[in-house]
Amino acid sequence: MNDFTYYNPTKIDFGRGKENTIGKHIKEAGVESVLLVYGTGSIKKSALYETTIHALQESGIAYKELDGVVSNPLLSRVNDGIKIAKEHKLQAVLGVGGGSVADSAKAIASGAKYDGDVWDFFIQKAQVTEALPVFTVMTLAATASEMNGNSVVMNDETKQKYSFSSVLVNPVVSVINPELMATVSQEYLAYSAVDIIAHSIEIYFTASTHPNFNSRVVESIVKSVIETTEILLEDPNDYDARGEFAWVASQALNGLTPAGTAGGSFPNHIIEHDLSALYNVAHGAGLSIVIPAWMKWYKEQNTAQFERFAKEVFGVNGADAGIEKLESWFAKIGSPVRLQDANIPKEGIEALALNASELAKIWGMGDLYSKEIIAEILEKA
Amino acid sequence: MNDFTYYNPTKIDFGRGKENTIGKHIKEAGVESVLLVYGTGSIKKSALYETTIHALQESGIAYKELDGVVSNPLLSRVNDGIKIAKEHKLQAVLGVGGGSVADSAKAIASGAKYDGDVWDFFIQKAQVTEALPVFTVMTLAATASEMNGNSVVMNDETKQKYSFSSVLVNPVVSVINPELMATVSQEYLAYSAVDIIAHSIEIYFTASTHPNFNSRVVESIVKSVIETTEILLEDPNDYDARGEFAWVASQALNGLTPAGTAGGSFPNHIIEHDLSALYNVAHGAGLSIVIPAWMKWYKEQNTAQFERFAKEVFGVNGADAGIEKLESWFAKIGSPVRLQDANIPKEGIEALALNASELAKIWGMGDLYSKEIIAEILEKA
Repeated sequence: MNDFTYYNPTKIDFGRGKENTIGKHIKEAGVESVLLVYGTGSIKKSALYETTIHALQESGIAYKELDGVVSNPLLSRVNDGIKIAKEHKLQAVLGVGGGSVADSAKAIASGAKYDGDVWDFFIQKAQVTEALPVFTVMTLAATASEMNGNSVVMNDETKQKYSFSSVLVNPVVSVINPELMATVSQEYLAYSAVDIIAHSIEIYFTASTHPNFNSRVVESIVKSVIETTEILLEDPNDYDARGEFAWVASQALNGLTPAGTAGGSFPNHIIEHDLSALYNVAHGAGLSIVIPAWMKWYKEQNTAQFERFAKEVFGVNGADAGIEKLESWFAKIGSPVRLQDANIPKEGIEALALNASELAKIWGMGDLYSKEIIAEILEKA
Repeated sequence: MNDFTYYNPTKIDFGRGKENTIGKHIKEAGVESVLLVYGTGSIKKSALYETTIHALQESGIAYKELDGVVSNPLLSRVNDGIKIAKEHKLQAVLGVGGGSVADSAKAIASGAKYDGDVWDFFIQKAQVTEALPVFTVMTLAATASEMNGNSVVMNDETKQKYSFSSVLVNPVVSVINPELMATVSQEYLAYSAVDIIAHSIEIYFTASTHPNFNSRVVESIVKSVIETTEILLEDPNDYDARGEFAWVASQALNGLTPAGTAGGSFPNHIIEHDLSALYNVAHGAGLSIVIPAWMKWYKEQNTAQFERFAKEVFGVNGADAGIEKLESWFAKIGSPVRLQDANIPKEGIEALALNASELAKIWGMGDLYSKEIIAEILEKA
């Protein structure tokens, strides 16, 4: 069992109507003004925008707004937010939306307390040493951004989709109301399911050792994702399934699953980041293309764990049977499993592999994931 | 899925030699003096006392000492600690030992910031609104006290063993080094295993609804406890098993397993508290007597979950078979399963039942757990 530090100070307030409490939570933290960050309009179509403003006003929290955050959130918009936060000396950042909004809120929160370029954190030129407190009200469950310190942002100039992580931008409080997630499209529900599974299985397969407890928790997450996704595709308003899906999403990337394992890495995320960056594929859709290909390429390196996965999650024998089951399930819920499903031409592989190998270098995985290896993996998709 | 708040701000520093970092952790929290709380000598037999003092001195942390904390820790000793902490205006409490030491440290931390009698918190006459920060270095894995806000203390005058819970006494940092736990006796390892299982299954069986994910996590905990206990009974120095056992102990009572379930209660702990209080039985030993009896009495009230437990944990069919497997396993590892195994006479049942029914009233479970019902349960033991 490897040494580890587990520290997750985010408070989760989970349940029906909990978005009404966000003003109270912010006030309790001693904050008097926030930058309210949101997306391209869905919170205005629902009543959530009004609810949020009302909750802020009721607690006497002043606010400025930054809208227009898109999926694969852009660095340029983050910089707009930092400018507003600095100009008005705002004391915190409140993200209301999905993972992209939460990730942008975190980048703004750290950039607002930094004199240099916020991109420095993403290219590991600087470490976050101070940040505004972050709060979130989530409308999508997938990234676990509500319960971790990760921020993934795309540099719109260089097309690099990079990330940083700091416990200083772990949300102080995140509100999760499953009801707010009931309007997500079936397509995005499927992509989210893929993303959650990806978060939990990357280290499960790549760590050379892991306590059985960790493997069991990962298998529990995957089984609950599969069960609840199938229920929600039938009935989007099943509150219990929506709630379990959301809570499991948080558990998949909040520090619990890797604790005590031997390292592990996120190769599928590295490769996928480029599908998103170069072809604007939704993150989950890119992952369901990359994961089965990567599994076929990697399986011999950790055969016992691949066999365990097949047996525990799908009740089948052998690594190949498990991979096949997972790939079929991705296809069944409507997530693409081949590059062509996402209109990515075979000729695109070289550029993707080059870009991904550069990211692999930054993440310290350049030795294993060269341009040639990544091309070999993508050929399988 | 029920509403819940999940908030566990304790930082866990886990691994070999991590006790050397405790001074650094305390200093980082801005603390300059502590009350060092420990037990009846085992940390002096090992090198841990010297290591701790050295770590404190190295970081320039002043300290006073309170030794002599016993299992089923006493209120009188807690009051001694409060007196020292107040007198010397100490800024924090550091517990080095097992659950009793950690629980005493928490009681001292809250009592030191309270003008009234610390027992008020235990009898719910007052709520903790302020406390000194708590730090722990653990030498036993069982209670999860290193990762929650619970404190269980025995009033030596009234013989009441009561508890309170407040996130204000969640340890700021807890050090878990599995190596420090390798000298625990086989007997206490078994009692600890029972305690961990008890923590995770009380709500599992008593909540009327629970997400499948929660049930899976509980089953994962129980399976890992069983596996690692058996390894450790063979080889006390198996570091990986010791580490997984310790980490699973923390997960069993840190707020994860109940999140989203419908209520649930701790009847076995209530009944057991009296076996400890009146007969000075070790907590885990009392639990292994109470649990099978309670399960036999309760099983019809949640048949599906009892059947699930039997199947998932032991691979057997039917509630009775599962109960039988658990009882046999307790006996196999050397924990008592009958009152007579702990030299508690049949005539003692009435007094035990009376005392336990009073505690049940305080915990709001008086309707279900009357004196007569508790006697009926204990008759089965």
